[in-house]
Amino acid sequence: MTETKPPETHAYLLDRPLFAHLATVRPDGSPQSSVMWFAWDGEFVKFTHTKLRQKFRNLGENGQVALSIVDPDDGYRFLEVRGSVESVEDDETGAFYDFLAERYGTLGRVRDPKVRVVVKVRPEKFVAVEGGHVVGSDPSVY
Amino acid sequence: MTETKPPETHAYLLDRPLFAHLATVRPDGSPQSSVMWFAWDGEFVKFTHTKLRQKFRNLGENGQVALSIVDPDDGYRFLEVRGSVESVEDDETGAFYDFLAERYGTLGRVRDPKVRVVVKVRPEKFVAVEGGHVVGSDPSVY
Repeated sequence: MTETKPPETHAYLLDRPLFAHLATVRPDGSPQSSVMWFAWDGEFVKFTHTKLRQKFRNLGENGQVALSIVDPDDGYRFLEVRGSVESVEDDETGAFYDFLAERYGTLGRVRDPKVRVVVKVRPEKFVAVEGGHVVGSDPSVY
Repeated sequence: MTETKPPETHAYLLDRPLFAHLATVRPDGSPQSSVMWFAWDGEFVKFTHTKLRQKFRNLGENGQVALSIVDPDDGYRFLEVRGSVESVEDDETGAFYDFLAERYGTLGRVRDPKVRVVVKVRPEKFVAVEGGHVVGSDPSVY
């Protein structure tokens, strides 16, 4: 299934505190794959980054991203989200970082709010995979 | 840690039948993230692809890839491998597919050997992450 909204069968993967593998493109055109916390607010996928990391610098050159989230109980069931960066905002108080830390059940709280940002990604396409195969339409998209 | 060999602390992630998230770059320059079986032979990371899939076509235009593998018992511990495609060979008998199917403990065997290929990736860099932080050297690589 290739949709502009999360398919109902896979939307739970966005709601649960799972780890997203975020693909970005480096300035030399090669990809990078980073394991990230995320949150989904029904419109945007949001990440906490610091301005010091390569994965953040990548977005300054190429705002296109893809992320994949696997069901921990079934490796053949996952959701890929393709989209692009809508905004990057300072997380001056670290509130968003702390929100994610709580969502993921960790005890630590923000230590580097001065370099923390909230990256909002607008999804453009959802690809839902089940049993290793794309659900619904054209499997060639995947 | 950014190395040209798998760091000892994280090499087990290549040996176990875990799912790799493979980042490729699409012809329009945007990334794609696909969840894949893989095998590691000590020199190459090998994947089974079919010629019919977008992720395979991507490699024809840009052979650079990245893959990330998370420890299923610790989401803050993972290995990223960056490299490029060394070769693509037909898997005419499906032997490599079947090898992976066995490695991953599935009952099914190859059904589409005519379009199956073995993609060999030569690692150029390993980035090991532990506790959410890059092990060893410069954290800005990640």
